[in-house]
Amino acid sequence: MTDGVLNVQNALSSIEEHWQPHRLTSINDYDVKVVRMQGEFVWHTHPDTDEFFMVVEGELTIQLRDRNVTLGPNDVFVVPRGIEHCPQAAGEVRAILIEPKGTINTGDAGGDRTAQLREINEVAR
Amino acid sequence: MTDGVLNVQNALSSIEEHWQPHRLTSINDYDVKVVRMQGEFVWHTHPDTDEFFMVVEGELTIQLRDRNVTLGPNDVFVVPRGIEHCPQAAGEVRAILIEPKGTINTGDAGGDRTAQLREINEVAR
Repeated sequence: MTDGVLNVQNALSSIEEHWQPHRLTSINDYDVKVVRMQGEFVWHTHPDTDEFFMVVEGELTIQLRDRNVTLGPNDVFVVPRGIEHCPQAAGEVRAILIEPKGTINTGDAGGDRTAQLREINEVAR
Repeated sequence: MTDGVLNVQNALSSIEEHWQPHRLTSINDYDVKVVRMQGEFVWHTHPDTDEFFMVVEGELTIQLRDRNVTLGPNDVFVVPRGIEHCPQAAGEVRAILIEPKGTINTGDAGGDRTAQLREINEVAR
């Protein structure tokens, strides 16, 4: 039985695929997601919401149209709503994402990188 | 000049007092706060919102009326809205809190532990 405490590293280790966000928990109508990333994602925008990134392991580049930002472990960056961005990870990156429930990973871009939000397996909690 | 990337550990190291939440960044109308805790806080409830805790360093006990939960580094717990709780830290704990803007640290309890939300110093960002 779980006591409700969730370990971010265990949750990340239970994920097998890159670019597949899994819901760890929620804060009201916001989802706290964990994701493993490697390679380049797609350029996209979330017109209606900011997107919070926190790197747990690895080095993540978030490409913006006017610059790139690079995040290492314990670094946080918020992509403001409406700002086009494209995450890129040369090596594997493990991260936490926070955004309102229903936010789609590919934003307004859609396409075959669009992932349905999955749940972290109970065992990993 | 900051590029907008914020380091959680640097932010925590810039805080001098316990139980003084500092705003690191925001996601829409939610604040991401960092806080150092040591000792026992006060029993309180947030009637209108969940409260997200993530421990960065140390061991945090969140006392609930029906049980205690204990969080170590990278552990996450969400206190559901309306649930009375009292954080307790035998040693120092460094943590991230997320809740809607305007949420008061002492919730419905008030009293002299009520802290005004401060901003992380630019230099620590």
